[in-house]
Amino acid sequence: MSVAFVVEKFGGTSVAGPDRIRVVADHVARRCSRGDRVVLVISAMGSETDQLLRMASDVAADPPGREVDMLITGGERKACALMAMALSDLGVPAASFTGSQAGFRTDSTHSDAKILAITPGRITEALARGVVPVVGGSQGVSGDGDVTFFGRGGSDTTAVALAHVLAADYCEIYTDVPGVFSADPRLVPQARRMDVVSFDELLEMTASGCPKPAMRAVELARTYGVELHVRSAFSWMPGTTVTGEEAMEHAIISAVTHDASEAKMTVSGVADKPGVAGRLFRALADTEVNVDMIVQNVSREGVTDISFTVPKLQLDASRSVAVALIDELGADEVSADDSIARVSLIGAGMQTNPGVAARMFETLAAAGINIEMISTSAIRISCVIRAGDMERAVVVLHESFELDKDPADRASVY
Amino acid sequence: MSVAFVVEKFGGTSVAGPDRIRVVADHVARRCSRGDRVVLVISAMGSETDQLLRMASDVAADPPGREVDMLITGGERKACALMAMALSDLGVPAASFTGSQAGFRTDSTHSDAKILAITPGRITEALARGVVPVVGGSQGVSGDGDVTFFGRGGSDTTAVALAHVLAADYCEIYTDVPGVFSADPRLVPQARRMDVVSFDELLEMTASGCPKPAMRAVELARTYGVELHVRSAFSWMPGTTVTGEEAMEHAIISAVTHDASEAKMTVSGVADKPGVAGRLFRALADTEVNVDMIVQNVSREGVTDISFTVPKLQLDASRSVAVALIDELGADEVSADDSIARVSLIGAGMQTNPGVAARMFETLAAAGINIEMISTSAIRISCVIRAGDMERAVVVLHESFELDKDPADRASVY
Repeated sequence: MSVAFVVEKFGGTSVAGPDRIRVVADHVARRCSRGDRVVLVISAMGSETDQLLRMASDVAADPPGREVDMLITGGERKACALMAMALSDLGVPAASFTGSQAGFRTDSTHSDAKILAITPGRITEALARGVVPVVGGSQGVSGDGDVTFFGRGGSDTTAVALAHVLAADYCEIYTDVPGVFSADPRLVPQARRMDVVSFDELLEMTASGCPKPAMRAVELARTYGVELHVRSAFSWMPGTTVTGEEAMEHAIISAVTHDASEAKMTVSGVADKPGVAGRLFRALADTEVNVDMIVQNVSREGVTDISFTVPKLQLDASRSVAVALIDELGADEVSADDSIARVSLIGAGMQTNPGVAARMFETLAAAGINIEMISTSAIRISCVIRAGDMERAVVVLHESFELDKDPADRASVY
Repeated sequence: MSVAFVVEKFGGTSVAGPDRIRVVADHVARRCSRGDRVVLVISAMGSETDQLLRMASDVAADPPGREVDMLITGGERKACALMAMALSDLGVPAASFTGSQAGFRTDSTHSDAKILAITPGRITEALARGVVPVVGGSQGVSGDGDVTFFGRGGSDTTAVALAHVLAADYCEIYTDVPGVFSADPRLVPQARRMDVVSFDELLEMTASGCPKPAMRAVELARTYGVELHVRSAFSWMPGTTVTGEEAMEHAIISAVTHDASEAKMTVSGVADKPGVAGRLFRALADTEVNVDMIVQNVSREGVTDISFTVPKLQLDASRSVAVALIDELGADEVSADDSIARVSLIGAGMQTNPGVAARMFETLAAAGINIEMISTSAIRISCVIRAGDMERAVVVLHESFELDKDPADRASVY
């Protein structure tokens, strides 16, 4: 095996306590002893971010974003210092760096800061001295000199961005699961770990319920062509490679994903004329609601219904926006439903196989599961169903599309 | 009451949890509403520093100082962010600042960094905008751009240094005791809180067992003439003013202090000739042992004994140094005793009253307490006694010198 230059990112469960930190340090030490050059990006330990946010809500009803970021980024900083200590203890020279020290310049959007530029002089200088840089994930410094936080999952973004600017060979995202699966193994014991998945597929999977890695990081990796390896810091198995190249042997369907975090809203009886949807979704965007699926039913007698899904946490805000527009839109009513779930089929090969959607609907129908909304993209078909049917839907779809089998052994036409 | 410009420092117990942080924020809000301008300096919450150090020792036998500082300073930073949130919640504009952001430039002596310069541009700018700056105590940034820690008690130093460079009217050190006392109230229930104490007296008291404020901060305050107020964040009573000016009504004796943290070492039978003590204490200094009291007995037949006290934690190191020098010094033996304690009388008025020392020795003798070493300064007399006699010694001395009474009502000659 030739030597590699790699950025390794470790998530919160991977560094949840001193024992885990020593395990990760041991892995890095072995890797360095083989001649690889390693840059580490570390998340806050275990549930530390949640604990810090709870403290913030204990002292203030609406804490200022600047202070929230100052508070939260301490979590990654602490984990980094401990990791650098653990590496030193194993004889591996290491040094921790905050996002600011690592050169991450951002805008001033606290708790959702965007990277403007990276000047990783201290990181390259450390590497040149044979020191392993241990970088605090999800953080940087604004033009005002304030500490900024990229948001949840931002450590993945830090890792991908560093891999790009340092021209690393690839970026490893270590989590508590050993790769990307054909379905959530907790729901489907036969779920299959994929060796390779494309950026587009992973993006659709992330958007439709697959929890890791963070979507923003996958987008960044696709943009800059940074090869990702999704691996486990518990099994250390090879994991799943995410790449922009089409794999030679590629399944029609890669995975079934599910998501119970959203709610459905319907604005009924609006005029079917230009500008109506635009007015509604502009108002929602101005309230920073993340609208996901949007379905507009066919018109009946000049009026139509518009349904869309939003995060459950934003349901109240969304309803207020929609209700305020009832008169302007000429709508009958606004209804909300937070007992829904979404199941999706993901697969780069299914755009040329129209039987896939039909088989999906047939499979759900045969299981007595009603479909309430449908939305499709080139590589995804999503169905909104009752939340109570979600787990069963994932199981029957995984079975119907033979996702437990090697792709070569599955049916190739549906 | 005229308006004031004040630096207020809050220690760990004062901000031990969200409830305490809200209490302190409420105090600051009231103060601001009266027109005072306030700069806050905050320590890490409760036992957080200890918890972080325990984690460090869990991951590494000998963690590098740079990483220890990166880890520990997160404690103050967290407390500052929470305090700024709590103030904002009360409608008081506030912003947290790390030591680096507050302009503290230091040397690179990790965990014991010395301030080289302070450029508090962001603090003065915040004050000009009516924002309360909340500064992380005991921290700064080195010329290499690394985070540095001043050591335990360093938040007092931060507060005094800021009060000086900002030209504040005075500096308040909030602790969990309501001021400086004539003896430890846990040992002597009749102990009297002093309204005023001089820098010199407080320095002697701090050096001989009074735990607060930190000695380095008192030295700095004396050097720059920063008036200190030692107060309680639990009672909010006026506390003790520490000043360089002599108080008009001044007691001969201010306080009795005690210290059980040291051990005694004796190097017996060394030649009574020039250079011997110098050789011994240079060797100890090179090992960074903090030697405190030194007593050299009178010579008998050309040889003498040298006794000194060292922190118990440094006893093993000190013994090794002394034993290695036995031949060179021509000593008979080196002995160590860690069952000692020191009681001291402090008072700026006692240098002109030679009866004080006599009365101290008489009082201890009458209580059957043997004196093993004596050392005096212009404003302090210290006796080393058995550790088991310490509490009783404090009680009888406090009573003998009538320290529970108002100074005007005490005897003026002993």
